[in-house]
Amino acid sequence: MNGRRVTIVDVAARAGVAISSASSALNGRSGVSQATRERVQEAARELGYVPSLRGRSLSTQRAFSIGFVLHRSLEVLEADPFFGAFIGGIEQAISPRGYALVLQVGSTLEEAEGRYRELAANRRVDGVLLNELRIDDSRIDLVQEIGLPAVGIVPPIDSFPLPCVRQGSAAGVRALVRHLVELGHRNIAHVAGPPGFVHSQERIDAWRGALEEAGLATGALIPGDFTYDGGRAAADEIAAMAERPSAVVCANDLSAVGLMIRAQELGWSVPGDLSICGYDGIALGTYVRPTLTTVQASPRRVGAAAAELLLDLIDDPEANALRHVDLPAGELVVGTSTGPVA
Amino acid sequence: MNGRRVTIVDVAARAGVAISSASSALNGRSGVSQATRERVQEAARELGYVPSLRGRSLSTQRAFSIGFVLHRSLEVLEADPFFGAFIGGIEQAISPRGYALVLQVGSTLEEAEGRYRELAANRRVDGVLLNELRIDDSRIDLVQEIGLPAVGIVPPIDSFPLPCVRQGSAAGVRALVRHLVELGHRNIAHVAGPPGFVHSQERIDAWRGALEEAGLATGALIPGDFTYDGGRAAADEIAAMAERPSAVVCANDLSAVGLMIRAQELGWSVPGDLSICGYDGIALGTYVRPTLTTVQASPRRVGAAAAELLLDLIDDPEANALRHVDLPAGELVVGTSTGPVA
Repeated sequence: MNGRRVTIVDVAARAGVAISSASSALNGRSGVSQATRERVQEAARELGYVPSLRGRSLSTQRAFSIGFVLHRSLEVLEADPFFGAFIGGIEQAISPRGYALVLQVGSTLEEAEGRYRELAANRRVDGVLLNELRIDDSRIDLVQEIGLPAVGIVPPIDSFPLPCVRQGSAAGVRALVRHLVELGHRNIAHVAGPPGFVHSQERIDAWRGALEEAGLATGALIPGDFTYDGGRAAADEIAAMAERPSAVVCANDLSAVGLMIRAQELGWSVPGDLSICGYDGIALGTYVRPTLTTVQASPRRVGAAAAELLLDLIDDPEANALRHVDLPAGELVVGTSTGPVA
Repeated sequence: MNGRRVTIVDVAARAGVAISSASSALNGRSGVSQATRERVQEAARELGYVPSLRGRSLSTQRAFSIGFVLHRSLEVLEADPFFGAFIGGIEQAISPRGYALVLQVGSTLEEAEGRYRELAANRRVDGVLLNELRIDDSRIDLVQEIGLPAVGIVPPIDSFPLPCVRQGSAAGVRALVRHLVELGHRNIAHVAGPPGFVHSQERIDAWRGALEEAGLATGALIPGDFTYDGGRAAADEIAAMAERPSAVVCANDLSAVGLMIRAQELGWSVPGDLSICGYDGIALGTYVRPTLTTVQASPRRVGAAAAELLLDLIDDPEANALRHVDLPAGELVVGTSTGPVA
């Protein structure tokens, strides 16, 4: 282990089980077989694993603050109302309970990790929220290693090793594709989120799956990055295609708005020449013309639920160590940016 | 003084001078006459004034955090990209200097005051930013009373008793009115910001003054509140007028967008039937059609400058006790929401 403290991640790996199972086994919770429990306990003994008490000591010397590190460029705070809504939801949950939000920006995941370490080392916060998780996100190990209470905002997966708020976007994306298929579209492209993010991949898979279900060929997968400019670039990419799609599902609203405005600049009618959908349900989608067909995912409710769970975890680490809060999937909102295929 | 600690505000009142003059006199800075200096020192002696050392003790026991309390409804964080830009600017300035932002929401000024008191009492922050000041804002006395380093974001006034970043909106509003007058408009209304705010009043005065300069009668002053829905309500108010204005200057971009979208729903052409301007320069104004004529006030730059000044103040309270940073006025951005009078 090269002198690094042994974490539950190491124990799980040694025992060959999911981190959640290792945690359940070591904490005497149900949901694991007796055989698994014994294998995990043996692995813990072999590795010399000592459970962290940091979380508990923090709970008596509280900072009455929770941390959120945005690992995106600063511009996104202005450009994407998703984050304002999400932060508003956090405030709504923590304010009545006497907590403050410590907000930091780390424009890369590495910078973000450094910020989490500082927040923990200086006991500035009692816990943190982890959103926009990457596939194999190193922050998950990090918070366990440094004993920092953390709540993840994740798609509905079973193996997540931390308490989390789960909201799937697959059902919403499938509803968007079905809506387009009902309008007669057969060539439906996807403007993806940035690669490596769990929710980017979830939306790609859902779009592909829904096309398959409808018996349609997979459309063009256009790279994107959740930004307005990324959406504009996608329109230019579509303009250069030999066979253009008649409809596009974008990974979020902001990129859909960028795509729509660039499409209009190129002289296309929306939805006449191109139907466009977003995802998130931010107010911006109702300000543009045509109004955006999207999925209302209620980012404010997600922020509030995650912050509530984090405060519960801080208050009672044992009872909430692996609590999952499942939020309903977002609902289809049909605007005027989608219409029958020409 | 009813047992309350004597503050520099009391000394200034007793001496009959501005708070800034009292501070200069007591701190041995230039800019006050010998007579004023003596009068202030006498008032301080009579009242038993003791300068607060709180700021200095904080500087050795730092929280390495600064506070910002938004005293608006939570919705505004999502709805108005101004705040995302402003907060992004703060982060841009404090992140490289190792500071974090503690963000709180107090939906009323009273609630906001309570949050500032808590932040100071618990030493959670080393200083705070005060924006959206009200006329006779009680937070100014409060931060002086509790010895909490603070930086204000204010219009260019001389008498502000704290270090501040000054940016006027009057020049920008006058430029908007002149732009409309050049297009032939003679009946120019104003959708105001919420009453009681310094910057609401500044914009009303600038709109009135510019009309006067142009030799035009004052147009309709329509109440507003900086929100999208307030802008929509203003459109309905205009619809009910016997003599409708041909152009409107709104106190901010978000209300201008609400006005524009409601105007379009009412079947009016923008700018054909009504020219519309905003103020702030948020990205939203470039997403809507027509694009918004506005003033680019760079809220991100304002946030960054204020945060820089606050960190300087925390580092060296004496040298920065009354420092003013003047930012250039915002520049006119002509979109397609304004056109010649019909």
